[in-house]
Amino acid sequence: MALTSADERFLSETLSFWKDLTQGQKDNLKQIIVRKQFVAGEAMHSGSENCSGLFLLHTGQVRAYIISETGKEITLYRLFERDVCIFSASCMMKNISFDIFVEVEKETEAYLIPTAVFRKLSLESLPAQVFTNNLMASRFSDVMWIMEQALFTSLDKRLAGFLLEQLVIDGNDKLTITHEKIANHLGTAREVVTRMLKYFQMEGMVSLNRGTIDILDEKKLKDLVED
Amino acid sequence: MALTSADERFLSETLSFWKDLTQGQKDNLKQIIVRKQFVAGEAMHSGSENCSGLFLLHTGQVRAYIISETGKEITLYRLFERDVCIFSASCMMKNISFDIFVEVEKETEAYLIPTAVFRKLSLESLPAQVFTNNLMASRFSDVMWIMEQALFTSLDKRLAGFLLEQLVIDGNDKLTITHEKIANHLGTAREVVTRMLKYFQMEGMVSLNRGTIDILDEKKLKDLVED
Repeated sequence: MALTSADERFLSETLSFWKDLTQGQKDNLKQIIVRKQFVAGEAMHSGSENCSGLFLLHTGQVRAYIISETGKEITLYRLFERDVCIFSASCMMKNISFDIFVEVEKETEAYLIPTAVFRKLSLESLPAQVFTNNLMASRFSDVMWIMEQALFTSLDKRLAGFLLEQLVIDGNDKLTITHEKIANHLGTAREVVTRMLKYFQMEGMVSLNRGTIDILDEKKLKDLVED
Repeated sequence: MALTSADERFLSETLSFWKDLTQGQKDNLKQIIVRKQFVAGEAMHSGSENCSGLFLLHTGQVRAYIISETGKEITLYRLFERDVCIFSASCMMKNISFDIFVEVEKETEAYLIPTAVFRKLSLESLPAQVFTNNLMASRFSDVMWIMEQALFTSLDKRLAGFLLEQLVIDGNDKLTITHEKIANHLGTAREVVTRMLKYFQMEGMVSLNRGTIDILDEKKLKDLVED
């Protein structure tokens, strides 16, 4: 792909090992890298079914989640602009024996470094290997946080935390999200979310409307999380 | 430490990158490595409080777990002979923002590569970095498995699975373990474990005695797990 100088600046800022590559490696990467567009709802990665490579998010928003045999989901982490999706290249990593799914939440543009190219680079370049290592440690930390939340934190706090996170991401106090979707983020059932939201409404923290949840009292939600 | 040829063989078999080290690096490692003894119940690693380095288990058994603010525990994985404990060197890894605790379950002898030495090696040797990466991916997979179990699997199956695992580890169908300890492994309350064990007893799968749980029907437990 013909890269503009803006593209190249983006790569050098997103890939910590870029500066350590040889000119030949850089030229090769620039030739091979492609830009991909995704619409909301699209699957960027589906467990072990595909192994496209490393996605570098230029714009947009995606979520990584796991899913049970019975279809229950829980969100592990979300990626935004300048984040790197490593599990879409998980087949190149030894010892990864779990399936992660990545779904596009908002229209996304991403650069893709194909698996074979990144694998070769990781075997040649110590800084590229360090990059992978740091990335994996970071996702590992995200997952541990979610696990601690899911195991040790009550659902009211988790739901309040989720609404506040959503408020920051959307920058709008009218959240357009279904109870079903929230349940999939938190790894619980829709009925449980609805019941808790109704309790939040009774307490004056939110107002439930057709298709939206309006945040009425941010402070009260924060107090609940920190309580 | 003066290493015997058996020690050296153990290192070369446990550390995949050993063969790729220079003679100087090997000599340095052999000088610096120490052998440590731990008794059952001892802490090998306590969250971010200490950062001894990489422990290579020569003999024994340890468990890695997390603990909530209220003292609730859940076991993430267990390590046995020839396993490597990476989180006891977690301070050298960027982006690891969670605390893991490692407790000795059976008298353990381990070689220790101090953090500073392993950090230096990881910055010099691509194969050492790959080793760390594979190790982390393997622990990540263990944690994902536990997370899926805890979120998506009912407690009766998890308890049956745990008893069967314990049977294999101990090689004895009289398990010497308290209900409290089982609860800490599974991330639940003692009362819940006791209730479920009584149900297992009623179904003829186990017999509960003072201080032991006798496995009576291995097949029935297996069927329950696979159901």
